[in-house]
Amino acid sequence: MTVSISTDLGYEVQTKVATELQDLLADLIDLSLQGKQAHWNVVGPLFQSVHVQLDNIVDDARMWADDVAERKVTIDLAADGQPGDVAKHSRLEPLPQGYIADREAVALMERRVAGVASRARQAAERLGDLDIASQDLIIEIVRGLEKHQWMLRAQR
Amino acid sequence: MTVSISTDLGYEVQTKVATELQDLLADLIDLSLQGKQAHWNVVGPLFQSVHVQLDNIVDDARMWADDVAERKVTIDLAADGQPGDVAKHSRLEPLPQGYIADREAVALMERRVAGVASRARQAAERLGDLDIASQDLIIEIVRGLEKHQWMLRAQR
Amino acid sequence: MTVSISTDLGYEVQTKVATELQDLLADLIDLSLQGKQAHWNVVGPLFQSVHVQLDNIVDDARMWADDVAERKVTIDLAADGQPGDVAKHSRLEPLPQGYIADREAVALMERRVAGVASRARQAAERLGDLDIASQDLIIEIVRGLEKHQWMLRAQR
Amino acid sequence: MTVSISTDLGYEVQTKVATELQDLLADLIDLSLQGKQAHWNVVGPLFQSVHVQLDNIVDDARMWADDVAERKVTIDLAADGQPGDVAKHSRLEPLPQGYIADREAVALMERRVAGVASRARQAAERLGDLDIASQDLIIEIVRGLEKHQWMLRAQR
Amino acid sequence: MTVSISTDLGYEVQTKVATELQDLLADLIDLSLQGKQAHWNVVGPLFQSVHVQLDNIVDDARMWADDVAERKVTIDLAADGQPGDVAKHSRLEPLPQGYIADREAVALMERRVAGVASRARQAAERLGDLDIASQDLIIEIVRGLEKHQWMLRAQR
Amino acid sequence: MTVSISTDLGYEVQTKVATELQDLLADLIDLSLQGKQAHWNVVGPLFQSVHVQLDNIVDDARMWADDVAERKVTIDLAADGQPGDVAKHSRLEPLPQGYIADREAVALMERRVAGVASRARQAAERLGDLDIASQDLIIEIVRGLEKHQWMLRAQR
Amino acid sequence: MTVSISTDLGYEVQTKVATELQDLLADLIDLSLQGKQAHWNVVGPLFQSVHVQLDNIVDDARMWADDVAERKVTIDLAADGQPGDVAKHSRLEPLPQGYIADREAVALMERRVAGVASRARQAAERLGDLDIASQDLIIEIVRGLEKHQWMLRAQR
Amino acid sequence: MTVSISTDLGYEVQTKVATELQDLLADLIDLSLQGKQAHWNVVGPLFQSVHVQLDNIVDDARMWADDVAERKVTIDLAADGQPGDVAKHSRLEPLPQGYIADREAVALMERRVAGVASRARQAAERLGDLDIASQDLIIEIVRGLEKHQWMLRAQR
Amino acid sequence: MTVSISTDLGYEVQTKVATELQDLLADLIDLSLQGKQAHWNVVGPLFQSVHVQLDNIVDDARMWADDVAERKVTIDLAADGQPGDVAKHSRLEPLPQGYIADREAVALMERRVAGVASRARQAAERLGDLDIASQDLIIEIVRGLEKHQWMLRAQR
Amino acid sequence: MTVSISTDLGYEVQTKVATELQDLLADLIDLSLQGKQAHWNVVGPLFQSVHVQLDNIVDDARMWADDVAERKVTIDLAADGQPGDVAKHSRLEPLPQGYIADREAVALMERRVAGVASRARQAAERLGDLDIASQDLIIEIVRGLEKHQWMLRAQR
Amino acid sequence: MTVSISTDLGYEVQTKVATELQDLLADLIDLSLQGKQAHWNVVGPLFQSVHVQLDNIVDDARMWADDVAERKVTIDLAADGQPGDVAKHSRLEPLPQGYIADREAVALMERRVAGVASRARQAAERLGDLDIASQDLIIEIVRGLEKHQWMLRAQR
Amino acid sequence: MTVSISTDLGYEVQTKVATELQDLLADLIDLSLQGKQAHWNVVGPLFQSVHVQLDNIVDDARMWADDVAERKVTIDLAADGQPGDVAKHSRLEPLPQGYIADREAVALMERRVAGVASRARQAAERLGDLDIASQDLIIEIVRGLEKHQWMLRAQR
Repeated sequence: MTVSISTDLGYEVQTKVATELQDLLADLIDLSLQGKQAHWNVVGPLFQSVHVQLDNIVDDARMWADDVAERKVTIDLAADGQPGDVAKHSRLEPLPQGYIADREAVALMERRVAGVASRARQAAERLGDLDIASQDLIIEIVRGLEKHQWMLRAQR
Repeated sequence: MTVSISTDLGYEVQTKVATELQDLLADLIDLSLQGKQAHWNVVGPLFQSVHVQLDNIVDDARMWADDVAERKVTIDLAADGQPGDVAKHSRLEPLPQGYIADREAVALMERRVAGVASRARQAAERLGDLDIASQDLIIEIVRGLEKHQWMLRAQR
Repeated sequence: MTVSISTDLGYEVQTKVATELQDLLADLIDLSLQGKQAHWNVVGPLFQSVHVQLDNIVDDARMWADDVAERKVTIDLAADGQPGDVAKHSRLEPLPQGYIADREAVALMERRVAGVASRARQAAERLGDLDIASQDLIIEIVRGLEKHQWMLRAQR
Repeated sequence: MTVSISTDLGYEVQTKVATELQDLLADLIDLSLQGKQAHWNVVGPLFQSVHVQLDNIVDDARMWADDVAERKVTIDLAADGQPGDVAKHSRLEPLPQGYIADREAVALMERRVAGVASRARQAAERLGDLDIASQDLIIEIVRGLEKHQWMLRAQR
Repeated sequence: MTVSISTDLGYEVQTKVATELQDLLADLIDLSLQGKQAHWNVVGPLFQSVHVQLDNIVDDARMWADDVAERKVTIDLAADGQPGDVAKHSRLEPLPQGYIADREAVALMERRVAGVASRARQAAERLGDLDIASQDLIIEIVRGLEKHQWMLRAQR
Repeated sequence: MTVSISTDLGYEVQTKVATELQDLLADLIDLSLQGKQAHWNVVGPLFQSVHVQLDNIVDDARMWADDVAERKVTIDLAADGQPGDVAKHSRLEPLPQGYIADREAVALMERRVAGVASRARQAAERLGDLDIASQDLIIEIVRGLEKHQWMLRAQR
Repeated sequence: MTVSISTDLGYEVQTKVATELQDLLADLIDLSLQGKQAHWNVVGPLFQSVHVQLDNIVDDARMWADDVAERKVTIDLAADGQPGDVAKHSRLEPLPQGYIADREAVALMERRVAGVASRARQAAERLGDLDIASQDLIIEIVRGLEKHQWMLRAQR
Repeated sequence: MTVSISTDLGYEVQTKVATELQDLLADLIDLSLQGKQAHWNVVGPLFQSVHVQLDNIVDDARMWADDVAERKVTIDLAADGQPGDVAKHSRLEPLPQGYIADREAVALMERRVAGVASRARQAAERLGDLDIASQDLIIEIVRGLEKHQWMLRAQR
Repeated sequence: MTVSISTDLGYEVQTKVATELQDLLADLIDLSLQGKQAHWNVVGPLFQSVHVQLDNIVDDARMWADDVAERKVTIDLAADGQPGDVAKHSRLEPLPQGYIADREAVALMERRVAGVASRARQAAERLGDLDIASQDLIIEIVRGLEKHQWMLRAQR
Repeated sequence: MTVSISTDLGYEVQTKVATELQDLLADLIDLSLQGKQAHWNVVGPLFQSVHVQLDNIVDDARMWADDVAERKVTIDLAADGQPGDVAKHSRLEPLPQGYIADREAVALMERRVAGVASRARQAAERLGDLDIASQDLIIEIVRGLEKHQWMLRAQR
Repeated sequence: MTVSISTDLGYEVQTKVATELQDLLADLIDLSLQGKQAHWNVVGPLFQSVHVQLDNIVDDARMWADDVAERKVTIDLAADGQPGDVAKHSRLEPLPQGYIADREAVALMERRVAGVASRARQAAERLGDLDIASQDLIIEIVRGLEKHQWMLRAQR
Repeated sequence: MTVSISTDLGYEVQTKVATELQDLLADLIDLSLQGKQAHWNVVGPLFQSVHVQLDNIVDDARMWADDVAERKVTIDLAADGQPGDVAKHSRLEPLPQGYIADREAVALMERRVAGVASRARQAAERLGDLDIASQDLIIEIVRGLEKHQWMLRAQR
């Protein structure tokens, strides 16, 4: 009874899974920071509902980042989520500085949410043959991201 | 970064997934209306427990109908859940009008829950190659429906 | 001490009251299904607030449908709320299929809520001489429907 | 600005309203004590659901007794709810002593709930010309009692 | 299906109902402000219980004012509740400035609550032939005001 | 493994324990009815705090009556708590009819609570050699009753 | 040990502090009444979010009015918050009567909130040398008012 | 001040108390496992209420097992609750494998609950001279077990 | 019906019981103050868990002190819990001044908890012949103190 | 419409799925009993955090055992979870008797959690071709077990 | 980056701040013990409201004592709150032993609360030039103490 | 009544205040990301308590970052909190990559918390002459940071 998960997955699989998780972690942290940025700086007649909606996205992005990072240490590789790590791994384009008009904020965030969702879906498909537990987590996140994407897209 | 989910899935896949979701949506709305029908009209010594159990089924059927409909708009096709849509798509036989004896109510609802569960399971299997996010939702619903089915069957 | 309510009201009154309740039941179920339809398919800049407001209407319509159906069985006549019953008794015009623009959704629902409120008010007045307990329930519903009507009308 | 309610209603009306309330108060306290009696002594395969249902009736009867008594002091006549007062004013036949079979308990309580509901309805009709505030309270109680009556009758 | 509530009630009825509601609104806002005034300035051995009781009256008065104002806009006439409106429509005599002895505070508030209750009861009776939905709301408020009046009067 | 509690205690003990519990049950129900009587009819400057305190006593008396009655059926003898049973077994003197001055209400209830506490303590001592489980329940009630007694006595 | 706060502050300081608090109290009560006025009468596509936002402002204005009035009696001078007092001390211009378009409501309330915030900030600065406890309360209110002002201004 | 509980009770007493607690611990764990077994496998028209009732028994058995085990380590002897320990110390006959009819499940569990209650009562009596703190815990458990026994017996 | 508890217990018993309670009260207050002292001043790698554990002990000690003091006034003798009373009656050795290392804090508090538990147990045994209600309270406290003692001892 | 799940899966599949579930059920019950064993008997400076962490594992193991057993009856085969069944099916080595040092407890539980996680993962992979609903449940459990394993491993 | 707060404040300032905090800590602990003393021993017609009010003061005094003590260790000097420390640093005169009449209790506590408030205000002023973080905490406490003082003074 | 806050503060002050807030914002976001980094990667016997403590720091850092950013837009300058902004403004040294031993994690975070606290205190002092509302917020944050610093330092 000296089983360890690392052994179960094998070194090569473990490394591939970790790479998928690390990339998604950076995207999700960046999404949470950009979501707050837009939450603070949004202006326009729709301020109230956009301000609240963005905070809901931030809450989910933070929760998912936590789940992804803890999954990475669960398969026994440390997680990297400091500003430098986010800069290095995130695939999101930054938001413009300063105030953002409400409908522009919705459009900008829709593109970012869609981008993360699309990459997460591809990762989920690759993970199917590597680690079904990690895949299950990522599918959950895809469902959540695509739901946020719909609610942003619906405001066009 | 101009990705949209529709693009990711492609037009053909999107349509197939939407068909699965729309059929299940009609079944679930019908199940929720029939569940309420039986909840109101049940009579007999077991009234109390059957009355409550049916409401639990209704609560779940409503929640799942909401999830399925919102998943359909998430993949960018409008959902149809008005009385005419239910009549057109639902595959449930109506309950008899008027009062229903308690054990008969259990037997009638068991058949309906089993029917929806069986069709949902088949849909889930077909969705595996089309859209893992939609599949994940439907498996969740299968688990819940089959659990209700057990609790109805156990009363025979 | 062999009193029963049916006896108290008498056969004729009981039937008249039941007719009022059954018609309102069909309207309320239809309103709840149309409310969900619009909740899912609404699009436009006001998506967020309209999406939430429609769900509040659905919650109330469901609660009132339950109260009305249970009042009908309380005066000892079975309630009918299956899709076929709704089709037969409801007096609401269906919503258009597909996506609905936000302000159009508000206008369409305002007309439906106003229609149900108006018929419920007439029923309440007829019930005054038949059954003060049923009347009391319907007045409560009129107050709630008219409040929703105001909050929809205010968005014009 | 030296108005008092007593003055508003006038001495004669005040006395008539008080009589209606006092009689209903005795019935409701008796109903709550008999409900507890059956709650403790019920036996049979349906023990669990009948035991719980009876407690729900007791909770409502206690709440309504409190409302009726406080309405009586509100129109400035003391309320009487001690054992001797219940004995003197209540119109309920006592339950048999000792254990009570489950279905018998349901039948016995249905008769008592129906009796109180029927008398409350008559009181509510008489109160319409005397005091609309007291009438409103009694209609609320009629609705609740008749709902309990249905749920008991449905178990036949 | 172009029904509107205004049409249902008719212009003349609508205006009469609005007048009743506007007068009561002013009274209730004034009652809430005077209740706070006494809540702050009461002194004497009974300070603790009177301080709390007055806040309960304020909470109810605010809730009722909100209900009455929203009922007025529901029948499609704007509500007026600014200081100038209160001054113009309220029929309450102001409280004396400065500290108020505890039992004096109870007596002063009892007179004010009784006055509003008495006028609300008269309005409720007039509304019976005009708008049963508004009447239902006002009866509810009468019941609440008269209950507060009893609890103040009981301290004499 | 055909053990039953009745057998464990033996017929004679069972009967003695039941007598203790039945007497206390009647006292506690009477205390709860008298507590409500005083709660409704109390008048005077201390109305607010006495009104609330009496309701706390009623809540406890009801909870303890429930515990005692269920303990009696637990040792397999039906419990008797209808108005006639209370009249027959209770050892409390009735309260005077009509309004009761606040400090008089406190004094009258103190005597009743003290009387029940004293008899419960004697029962608890007799139960020590008969049934330690019933004794444990009664000691718990003695502690609660004596605490209420102190809080009433402290107002002298 | 015969210290009293009045003594600590001294008569002159006490009077100056009381004047600051009394002026702010009138402003805050007026703000709460105007906030409700706009909450009821707002119309337009943004009705839902403006209706809710205005109620949040009212809730805060009421809480702060309570804190300010209780701080005034804490330094031993009675607080004045009746309609006549508000009329005399408030520095807010009344809102126009009747319905108010949504974006106009936001603009009108922004000016009022900004006015109260600006005067509160000046009061807070004057209080620094008089009473640090009162100053601390007013700074807290300034922070809250300016936050509401931002959320109104952001909707321009 | 070098007191330890072990010293207070003395070695011999400590050992005797531990034996009583260890035997009861095994019984309670076995009761919780058998309760779950019946909770899962019960069938028949009473499924719903028996399924829930058995879970209530399991919840209590687990809580009591925790209390008893922690009391044993409190008197400084390790507690044994692994499957082998339960097999060795428990005095309960196993339930039959497979599905169990509802009324049979009630009868089987009544015998097991009665057996544990009876042995716990005997232990409580022996503990009176050894350790009043342990005795107090066991009496509490006897009261709870006998109450469950009543509610099972009442279904005969 | 002029019974009072004092009379029931008799002067001599009352005095003996009061002495037991007063001594325990002083110990418990001292324990709560020393628990806070250690809660603030503890240092070392185990700071987090010890800091929280000590606060749990303080919460219980305060609750028990309240129960004991109120039991003392319940048997009609005033309770003494001021600093001077604690100094006079407490039997706990003070903690050293200044910071306390984590494991030292655990050891010091274990000794104090054990001392109070041991004396409380002796008091509980003496109270058995004097006042079973007070004894029941003290046994409850013994169980709680000994549980804390175990959780401190387990950290050795 | 005479579908049953058994039919859908077919006899052979049903049996294979049941075997996977039954083995995991035994492991999870054993894990919950061993988790409690260690929760009670752990000693050492880290007692506080290990004691709490083990209870979290027990809570999850119980919840998962319930889900797995109910899934087994859902596919219509009775679940076996009595001590004898656990002994027969569980693949966990027992913990040593008596007290367990804190870090040893962590190490022992890590091995057991890892063992169950590893076998559950293999079962999940085999279930993919048999029953996607059962597979989905087991993947959920694998994720949870591996997370506990990380939090135990991290303490090395 | 080797900053420590001690360094920031400097040794001299740190000592002066600690002296202010230590003195206030002793006062607040004493106030909490005296508040409980009066809470237990108060008698008279106002017992109920004074008993509750004193407990509110105790709750606040305990919370503030905790904040002040933790602020003292935050600036890196151990806090002293044992009975001997309270005796040495507190500036409150003890309450008389034995029962205290309700209005006397209010007067005695008003003087103590006023004394602590006055000294806390002086400390807050001295802290302005030493440590704005400690000053902010003390101003918060002054506001709370002075509010309690008003509510006691208002009962004269 | 055309007041705006910007005008009140003046352009120069507004800019200075914004600079203080922007710098602190970057520090706080960095602190929250580093806190999570350590929360995920910490290892060692103290894992459990350090893991939880770090999450408490993250929760506070996120809340304060939100308050600071919203204060910056309140004085009408957009807030910058994207990864690039954090990199540019933050004054925290990054944590080492990979796993971090428990006591090392505590030491590293203590230094970072102390650094932010020290700079926040200096900002608070500079803000006293610029904007008392912003100063009040920063003092609140200083108090919270220094409390976390103590609880980290105490673990040395």
